Amino acid sequence: MARIVVTDGMSKDAVAHLQKNGHEVVEKSFTKSELKNGCLADFDAIIIRSATKLTSEVINSTGGKLRVIGRAGVGVDNIDLESASDAGIVVVNAPRASTQSVVELTIAHLLSSIRLLPQSDRSIRSGKWEKKAMVGTELSGKSLGLIGFGRIAQGVGIVAQAMGMEVHTYDPYLPPKIAKSQSTRLHKDIDTLFKTCTHISIHCNLNDDTHHLVNYERMEMMPGKSRLGILCGNHIVNCARGGIINETDLLRALDSEIISSAALDVFELEPITAENKLCLHPNFHGTPHIGAATKEAQNRVGIDIVNNVMDSLNGKKVKSIVNSHLLKK
Amino acid sequence: MARIVVTDGMSKDAVAHLQKNGHEVVEKSFTKSELKNGCLADFDAIIIRSATKLTSEVINSTGGKLRVIGRAGVGVDNIDLESASDAGIVVVNAPRASTQSVVELTIAHLLSSIRLLPQSDRSIRSGKWEKKAMVGTELSGKSLGLIGFGRIAQGVGIVAQAMGMEVHTYDPYLPPKIAKSQSTRLHKDIDTLFKTCTHISIHCNLNDDTHHLVNYERMEMMPGKSRLGILCGNHIVNCARGGIINETDLLRALDSEIISSAALDVFELEPITAENKLCLHPNFHGTPHIGAATKEAQNRVGIDIVNNVMDSLNGKKVKSIVNSHLLKK
Repeated sequence: MARIVVTDGMSKDAVAHLQKNGHEVVEKSFTKSELKNGCLADFDAIIIRSATKLTSEVINSTGGKLRVIGRAGVGVDNIDLESASDAGIVVVNAPRASTQSVVELTIAHLLSSIRLLPQSDRSIRSGKWEKKAMVGTELSGKSLGLIGFGRIAQGVGIVAQAMGMEVHTYDPYLPPKIAKSQSTRLHKDIDTLFKTCTHISIHCNLNDDTHHLVNYERMEMMPGKSRLGILCGNHIVNCARGGIINETDLLRALDSEIISSAALDVFELEPITAENKLCLHPNFHGTPHIGAATKEAQNRVGIDIVNNVMDSLNGKKVKSIVNSHLLKK
Repeated sequence: MARIVVTDGMSKDAVAHLQKNGHEVVEKSFTKSELKNGCLADFDAIIIRSATKLTSEVINSTGGKLRVIGRAGVGVDNIDLESASDAGIVVVNAPRASTQSVVELTIAHLLSSIRLLPQSDRSIRSGKWEKKAMVGTELSGKSLGLIGFGRIAQGVGIVAQAMGMEVHTYDPYLPPKIAKSQSTRLHKDIDTLFKTCTHISIHCNLNDDTHHLVNYERMEMMPGKSRLGILCGNHIVNCARGGIINETDLLRALDSEIISSAALDVFELEPITAENKLCLHPNFHGTPHIGAATKEAQNRVGIDIVNNVMDSLNGKKVKSIVNSHLLKK
């Protein structure tokens, strides 16, 4: 039996699942100062979301009992992986729980962009009937470029193909056979992806290689016209991480009409503020980082992380150990 | 060579296609009074959209030369079919041109509803970051009920299945094998469709049988919960024709939270006015009858109707004659 602290909330089902397996669960959030002063010393495992920051200082003040950190979600940028590894702490996440939710949000943003849904809704709410101003284009027959071709992008590709899109991918880390197995066209050079695709959706991590990967120069390469000659314009969606698109460049590209629409779920600075000019552009629409914000994903993430934390505590093999490359064997 | 008048506009490509085939094209719109006073007497064919109303009076004043009416679109409610048939005028339409566009708009409305896109965009535009208020649900794992299972609904079903939905259908006019061939569950009784499905999308014609088919009583039957127990609420989309949903009932159902979201492209009274309270409901979003309003559909509809009109003038067999059952052989 282990003592497990849950600091950023978790579904009732997941908490009950831990208790049913004989573990003691403490649901409590801590201040930064409490975290730095050893409040985690009495726990075998901690389960966090994104709010709790496990810095080097926090990890070094846990005293040696803590064996597992569970991140109920995907990104581990709020955990100092090196310090955790040095202390022999296993870090696990729950990478599959939100896949379908992000896939659906991406398709929602793509379709809303090209059919002018936000513009139409604003118009209708002001009592107008601007039918002639709301002529859009179809996704069918267009080339969709996916930057990164992991689980989420693969799911987006399947739905996009069902709607008649031709799917192109760029992912320098992925074995080419995965792109081929889904009948997508794999680009070795990201610039050819931009030169080929009128619709771009981002599905990679944020790191030094991908920071500001989408800039004015690349957006300018996009063709604005489909293979069949339809002037569909260029469209960008980002449901991955803020910072991959240079937002200053994006606003300039919207202003100069190089980009016809942009839809973002993630931003360089979150939360956004009222000063964010991008959010006020008529051809922009956004959501507040809600890729994983569905009841289904929240349920699954709780169950997944609880299973991964329990398996780690029991010394079982766990697929989603994030710091296996750093842990001393 | 025929004289053809185009009264509600048509794509340049389609006009050029007529001219290339040796026909004279006059692009001109007429007032009601001009139409009633024989302004069409000198034409062999007329191509209209929805603006020109070809009433009995108008048709009877054409004098006998007019042989073909082409409706660049689907609905022929603006043409008096009996009078046209009595006068020996063939009426053709272009029913396939807008299918994909309506399919994509329907999916756009479904996804926007369940992921709170319009609400999120309004919130972001006011500089807010209401992440916790924007928790939605997935389409995957839910039951979609399609009222009518013609071309458009079949297209919607394919995309919905690619997203993991279970598709249910109700269509008393369709051979059951079509529903079966697409792995959908065919209901003989519309009430069981409502009792089974948390998501309903309308794809039937407006007629005496379907007027106010979606009423408070039926909306109240919807389960609000998925087969797997997710409390996803109930959602309604209509991209077919206004009047199939009773809008007074819909507003009441939104107010009483029997219905969680409603997305309409079509309304009982079009254009809508600023007095329309439904359009101001926070869980409503709408578009101004833009199902066919894409560049692709507009191009296709022009080419399709021009081909159908020319074939009719040349006495060839045309698939999409609307009044074949009324014409004397």
